This record gives sequence, C-alpha cells and structure tokens, in this order.
Amino acid sequence: MAIQLRQLVAHLGGDLVGDPEREVSGIAPLDAAGSAHVSFLSNPRLRAQAAASEAAAMILTREDSERLGSQYAGARILVDRPYAYFARAAQWFASQSALPRTPGIHATAAVDPAARVAASAVIGPHVTVEAGAVVGERCVIDSGSFIGRDAVVGDDTHFHAHVCFHAACVIGERGIVHSGAVIGADGFGFANEDGAWIKIPQTGRVVIGVDVEIGANTTIDRGALADTVIEDGVKLDNQIQIGHNCRIGAHTAMAGCVGVAGSAIIGKYCTFGGAAMVLGHLTIADHVHISSGSMVSRSIPQAGQYTGFYPLATNAEWEKSAAIVRNLGTMRSRLRELEKTVAVLNAQNKKEN
Amino acid sequence: MAIQLRQLVAHLGGDLVGDPEREVSGIAPLDAAGSAHVSFLSNPRLRAQAAASEAAAMILTREDSERLGSQYAGARILVDRPYAYFARAAQWFASQSALPRTPGIHATAAVDPAARVAASAVIGPHVTVEAGAVVGERCVIDSGSFIGRDAVVGDDTHFHAHVCFHAACVIGERGIVHSGAVIGADGFGFANEDGAWIKIPQTGRVVIGVDVEIGANTTIDRGALADTVIEDGVKLDNQIQIGHNCRIGAHTAMAGCVGVAGSAIIGKYCTFGGAAMVLGHLTIADHVHISSGSMVSRSIPQAGQYTGFYPLATNAEWEKSAAIVRNLGTMRSRLRELEKTVAVLNAQNKKEN
Amino acid sequence: MAIQLRQLVAHLGGDLVGDPEREVSGIAPLDAAGSAHVSFLSNPRLRAQAAASEAAAMILTREDSERLGSQYAGARILVDRPYAYFARAAQWFASQSALPRTPGIHATAAVDPAARVAASAVIGPHVTVEAGAVVGERCVIDSGSFIGRDAVVGDDTHFHAHVCFHAACVIGERGIVHSGAVIGADGFGFANEDGAWIKIPQTGRVVIGVDVEIGANTTIDRGALADTVIEDGVKLDNQIQIGHNCRIGAHTAMAGCVGVAGSAIIGKYCTFGGAAMVLGHLTIADHVHISSGSMVSRSIPQAGQYTGFYPLATNAEWEKSAAIVRNLGTMRSRLRELEKTVAVLNAQNKKEN
Repeated sequence: MAIQLRQLVAHLGGDLVGDPEREVSGIAPLDAAGSAHVSFLSNPRLRAQAAASEAAAMILTREDSERLGSQYAGARILVDRPYAYFARAAQWFASQSALPRTPGIHATAAVDPAARVAASAVIGPHVTVEAGAVVGERCVIDSGSFIGRDAVVGDDTHFHAHVCFHAACVIGERGIVHSGAVIGADGFGFANEDGAWIKIPQTGRVVIGVDVEIGANTTIDRGALADTVIEDGVKLDNQIQIGHNCRIGAHTAMAGCVGVAGSAIIGKYCTFGGAAMVLGHLTIADHVHISSGSMVSRSIPQAGQYTGFYPLATNAEWEKSAAIVRNLGTMRSRLRELEKTVAVLNAQNKKEN
Repeated sequence: MAIQLRQLVAHLGGDLVGDPEREVSGIAPLDAAGSAHVSFLSNPRLRAQAAASEAAAMILTREDSERLGSQYAGARILVDRPYAYFARAAQWFASQSALPRTPGIHATAAVDPAARVAASAVIGPHVTVEAGAVVGERCVIDSGSFIGRDAVVGDDTHFHAHVCFHAACVIGERGIVHSGAVIGADGFGFANEDGAWIKIPQTGRVVIGVDVEIGANTTIDRGALADTVIEDGVKLDNQIQIGHNCRIGAHTAMAGCVGVAGSAIIGKYCTFGGAAMVLGHLTIADHVHISSGSMVSRSIPQAGQYTGFYPLATNAEWEKSAAIVRNLGTMRSRLRELEKTVAVLNAQNKKEN
Repeated sequence: MAIQLRQLVAHLGGDLVGDPEREVSGIAPLDAAGSAHVSFLSNPRLRAQAAASEAAAMILTREDSERLGSQYAGARILVDRPYAYFARAAQWFASQSALPRTPGIHATAAVDPAARVAASAVIGPHVTVEAGAVVGERCVIDSGSFIGRDAVVGDDTHFHAHVCFHAACVIGERGIVHSGAVIGADGFGFANEDGAWIKIPQTGRVVIGVDVEIGANTTIDRGALADTVIEDGVKLDNQIQIGHNCRIGAHTAMAGCVGVAGSAIIGKYCTFGGAAMVLGHLTIADHVHISSGSMVSRSIPQAGQYTGFYPLATNAEWEKSAAIVRNLGTMRSRLRELEKTVAVLNAQNKKEN
C-alpha cells in the first residue's frame, strides 16, 4: 500500500508542511516508525524521540512543531489533537487495506423470510436471523451470529462471529459488537417463596445508541419491564456484565471485567477501571471515574476519581495487616482507653505543677 | 391481549373481590400500572401509592387490603404472598402472548441419528446434537446450541441460542440455560513437574437438578473424577465460574460475576452478591449470605451475612487510608509502646499521690 | 477396559514391583480406589490411607515404598514424581477409552476453498474456516468453532465447540482451547476527543506457543500494532481476560476470572489465584505468585507470594472495621497527638523524679 501525504490530509484535514507526494505505507508510534511510516507526537515528553525519528511524516501540534524546529527532518502534519488524528489516520489506513466483503447472504445462513435484511449487508455462514428482525444497510454479521425475532440492527453495524442479539433489542448505527457478546438475555429477577425462587419474566429490551462498541463475551441483560439502555458512544470492553434496567450514559467507557448490578443509573463521560463493580439501584453522576478493582456500594452524586481496593503486599505483610484490620475495633478501643488515661494523667500533672 | 380477572384467579388462585369480568392486558408495578393493568402491593411502605393507583386490580394481602379500606377503587386479589403471586401472574401473562414454537428439527441442525430427541422438542437452526444424547419432551434448543455425546436434557428445558452442553452432562426438568453458557468444559487440573504443567484428564460430569436457571456466559466445569453438582432450584446469574467438583446446594442464588473455585461445597438457600469469590475446598453452611465483592477464604460453618470489601473513597482519601493499612503493624507497635509508657506513668503517679 | 500393569510401565516408565499381568481398569485417588484401580501416594500424610488401600497397584516413590513396608499388599510402581506420573497415567487411560474421531470435514461446515485443512484433521458441524487459514495435522475443531482469515492452528490442537479464533492469530502444537473462548478480538484502544472516543484499529495478532490450554469463555485480545503473546506451556482457566499487547511468560498458570490489563508483561512460572487482577503496563518477574482476589497495581520485580484482599467478617464486624478504615487518617492523628502528650508527661515525670 502506498499513499501520498496529500491524500491523507485531503481525507482527514490538517496542514501539511513538506512534500505532498511523499508516499507512506502506514502509521506507527514513535518507537516503531520507520521511513515509510507516518508517526505522531502527542506526549510532549517524547519530543526528543520525535526529533530523532526517521518517520516520513509527523502528526503534531503547531506548538510542538515550533519547539522541534529543524531537529526533525521529515514532513509535518499540523493538527489540534495529534492523538485523535492518529486514531482517524490509523482507521483510514486500515480501511484502505481491508478486504472488501461481498454483500449477500451465505448459503448456510438461516434467514427467516419475514426478516428484512438490506441488500448491501453481509450475512456470514451459520448466521440465524429470525422473523421480523431488521438488518440495516452495509451491516456485516459474521459467522454464527444470532439475531432474534424483531431485533433491529442499525446501518453500518458490525457483529463479529458468535454474537447473540436477542429478540426485540435495538442497536443504532455504526455499532461494533465483538464475539461471544450476549445482548438481551433475561435479567436476574425472582420472587422468593419459602426459600424457592419464582422467575419474574423479563419482558423489557436492550436499547443501544449509535457508535457503541461492545467487547467479547460481554453480557447486557434485557429489562424486566422497562428497557436496559446504553446511550450513544459508550465503549464496553470484554467480559463486562450489565444487569437489567441499567442505564449507561453517553460516552462512558468501561474496561474489562466490570460488573454493574441491576437498575444502576450511570452518568455520561464516566470511566471504569477493570473489574470495578457497581451495586444495584445506585445513581452515579456524570464525569465519575472509578479505579480498577473498586466496589461502588453507594450512589456518587459528585464528579471525581474514586478508589477502594486493598493494597497488595507480600503475603506475610498482608497476613499481618489483615489480622489487624479484622480487629480495628479493638485497636480503636485501646486508643480511646489510652486517651482517657492520658487525659487524667495530664490533668493531675497540671494540678501538681 | 385481554384477560378477564376470573381467568387469572382460576389459573393462579387467590380471592377475587370485584368484577370478575373486568378485562386486563398485563401486569405492572405500582409506578407503571395504568387502568388496563393488574398491579401488586408487596411492600407496606408503598400503601399510599397503591391507594392512588388506577390499576384495574391489585394483588395484596388481606391485611393490607383492610388497611387500604376504600382508598383504592379497583378490584382486589387477596393472597398470602403478593410478590410470589405477581411473579406467577407475570409468567402467565407472558405465556399467553408467547408465540407458539413448532416442534421439530430445523433443516440446518446436525442431529446424530444415534441421539434421541423427543418429537415434541424444538431444535433450532445450526444446533448440534451428538450421538447418545437425549433431549426430553417439549425442550426448546435454540440456534447454534451444542449438546455433546450422551448428554441428557430433561423435559421442558430451554437452551437459549449458543449454549454448550458437553458430553455426559445431565440437566433436569424445567431448566433454563442462557446464551453462551458453557456446561461441562474441563476443570482446571494439572500436576506440576519441574515447573511445567501436565494435564489431569477431567472425566467427571456436571449433574444439574430440576428448576435450575443458568445465566449468559456462565461456565460450570465438569468434575475431575467425581461430578460437579448443581442441586434443585439453584439460580445462577451471568458470567459466573463454578470450578470442578463443586456442589451448589438447593435454592442457592448467585448474582453476576461470582467465582467458586474447585471442590467448594456450598449449602442450601445461600445467596452470593455480585463478584463474590469462594476459594477452593471450602465448605459453606446453609443460609449463608455473602455480600457483593467479598472474598471467602475460609469455610463458614454458621448461617449469617458476611462481607469483606475495601470501602470506596475519593482517590485522595483512599491513597491515605491504603498507605496506613500497609503499615498497620507499625501503628499497632506504636500503640503498644504508648500503652507501656502510660502504664509506667500511671503507676508512678499512683505511688506519688 | 482391562490393561495389564506391564502395559502401563512399558508406556510410561517406572519400576514395577508385583505381578506384571495384573489387570486394572483405571486410576483413582486413594479415597476412591477399589481393587481394579491403580492409585497413587504423592502426599506423605496419606501414607496410612495408602497402607489400607485395596488398590491393585500404587504409584509412589522408592522412599515411601520402603516406609510403607509390608503394610500395603498390592503391586507398586516406583517413580520419582508420583503426582506427575498419575497425571500421565490418567491421560493414557483416558486415551484408551476415547472414541476415535473420523478425520474429515462435516457436511455442514463452511470451509473456504482457499483454507488449508490437513486431511487428518476433524472439522465438526457448523464450523467456519476462512480463506488462508491453516489447520494442522490431527487437529480437532469441534462444532460451531470459527477460524478467521489467515489464522494458523498447529498440529494436534483441539478447539472444543464454539471457539472463536480470529484472523491472523497463531496457536502452536498440542493446544487445547475450550468452548466460548475468544482469541483475537479487538483490544480496547481509543483516543479521546472532547469526551467522545475514536477507535484505534487493532492490527496486531495473538501469538500462542505450544502446549497452551485456554479455558471456557476466556478472552485474549489481539495487539494494537505489535502482538499479544502467550508463551509455551501457559495454562489459563475460564473467564479470564487478557488485554492487548500483554505477554504471558512460559508455564505461567492463571485460575478463573483473572484479568490482565493491556501491555502487562508477566514472567515465567508465575501463578495467579482466581479473580486476581493486574493493571496495564506493569512488569511482573518470574516465579511471582498472586493470591486470589488480589489487585496488582504496581510492577513486581521480585519473586514471591503477594496478597491483597479485605478479610471477610460477619457483616456487622465488617461495618465496624470498614468505618474505621475510612477514618484511619484520624486514628493516626489521634495516636500522634497522644504520643506528643505522653512524651511531655514523661519528660516532666523524669525531671520530677
């Protein structure tokens, strides 16, 4: 693949300083870029590395370009946000080398005659599309995926192999769902009667906005009566569990293994580190950031960074600190006792002196 | 859908007070019920809301009905346990509107001639049923599910799309297994030889009782030699991991992301909050309740509620408390030192006075 | 199945003491072995149990055999490492009774003409193999598995039902991948622009060594640009998440529900207890052992056992200790205050006496 720099800026913008016909074959970070690559400088601490780079062109801010001066010899693409530009350029390079997928329905797919599949969509081998389902323009539904009755898949959405998208669920345009994700299984709802559990039917849907990405083996349960809602631009990593009737606010991102219990309402622009957990029925404000491995057990009305995990130590040190944690009540009582005794001593001493 | 109240009580019991021919279209909680709904009062604190409800009929106890008096204008269905009745009524409404599934084997399914599939069962597209497997009466096996050699699926059991049910495993009547669940993969068993791991074959089964529900992407490993056992009425949410040779007691319920290591024996009527973890070879008594995010590292011989997770705080506060937790040994030593000093001071003071 | 002891030692080595033509039907641990079984003594504390065993033969060390003396009546197989020998013997017994799988491609499989599948391989129902993929000699690819474009599967590797192995990924010889595992989904990489997330294409691969086992519903993401690497002999249990660009060192073993964030570099011969978590971009030395439920938030340059989880208590006790943990800063201040006061008292006392 050979792309001229002028093609890149024609497509993505930015001011090109240097030879517009210089050809490049791809994009790479500073530590991997060779003379056929475009690279980028988004972290000011890497300026020295950028100066020494052999990259054919460098994506960077006007300010960083001036600071670099003549140290860097290649072409420059001046932009406001180099990292975002890099992401878009990488997407564009990837799209140039992607193999075209031929629209149509694979011979082994089982598409119900009462489903509506756009002629521009690609339906892979062993896919099932049930009656009433709608698959939009230019969708790609890979091998073995399942689309349930009356489900709706927006234009340009991509289901990788082995996705389960259950009856009546909806996903908007440009979604990406990774392998093994299960959208719309029953929520966990039971009534207890003398110790035994009676199932409460889960008749709500999962409704997902546009530009949402859902990781491999992630599960999002359908609502009990109302819907589970994933707003626009949400990004979920792998192995995440979202309980029934949750709402995840727009542009919130969650790393792998996060769990959100039922009916939690999570704000916009939040981030969750890996394996963070949220109890049910809580409300979390916009712009809240939860650290990895932290358990959220109360609502959080205020933006900020929150953390709660036991600090790692050698096993011997942990044994000691954990034993004391178990008995912190005793320690506090001893402290109180001492305070009293010392107060008495102090009073006596003052009287004497 | 229009159902008369007399049909509901004919099917589910309860004493109807009001017009038996009043028609309703479904069931809804107090905050969502309109004049075409049946609703229910199971939480006494919602009595005022019930009084103001427009619901066509209210499921409630005789006692709550008397307290409501004439405040509530609709019909009443008097029962002992309103929430359990609601669950059954919701099931019944759902069954009335469910689309009938036509028994038979889909043309794309691969059912071995040496498997026994009941004529009343539904086998969906792309399903595999291996030799010797048995699929009971009225089972529904949805798209892409896999049933291994000699496995047994009890009557009226429902596998949603993409279930894996491995060789020789057994599930009883009325089971529900959600998409992506893997029942009967090998347990994690190895012998170490000079640092390398030698696999120990896992030749036990998973044996599951009646009325068990298993969540999406949950995994239950087969036993090493003996079986892994899930007793009657157990309810497992999504993304749960049950190790080899565990036994989960009847009617125990586990929320999402719980992990149970191998050979743990868990009692009946227990509950586990989300992401709770149980180490291997432990024994947990009946009626034990483990809070979300808690790690069970010792056996629990006594019923009760148990908890263990680090309390969430702002990141700055956590940094401070975690640093002290790391050094609790030092803090305790300082406390001891003080106690000694104060004891000496105290003794001197007493002598002096 | 009847196997003579001489056949066992001919295949696996060890010195047989006793009747070489004694027939056995399988292998069992001490607490389950009957007179038709071979058993083993690997834990010296079980010597009394071994002495009383009816097993036809006992695998044990020469030293333990001498200590047993004439107490145990059966045959003996003297070896250096009884537990490793047991594992191999169990494998051998299992292989004797395994049903032969007929090589070939099932009629319902969708194998691209441009894929190369060894004639000795077994391709099950509903499998997809895309163009350019290579499936080695004697591989078994079970029902519904997916092998992406240009992926490479080494000889004698077994994919259980419903494995996803994405484009360009590589796994070496004798691998075992369990149901629902997803190898090579996109890593979680985004650039943030004014709060919204822009996807960074994930163009690296997952490269897996020989003798690797990967558990059910485990996910291993492909690298962003460079590869994610799983070295030889690694064993991963179920429900594990490995982020993009990680490297897992040879013979490291991880129990269920472990999560490793992107770009973490983990040494050889490490072990991770269930639900342990590792933050991104950390480096962990060889021979590091992380306890279950522990969060690794810094690099670990030194071998050893590390732990960090909040100790379980009754809920009432936890409420108390957690409240103190939240206020440890206050407790430390009170301690400092006391120390100062007592120091003054002490000084005064010394002056007076």
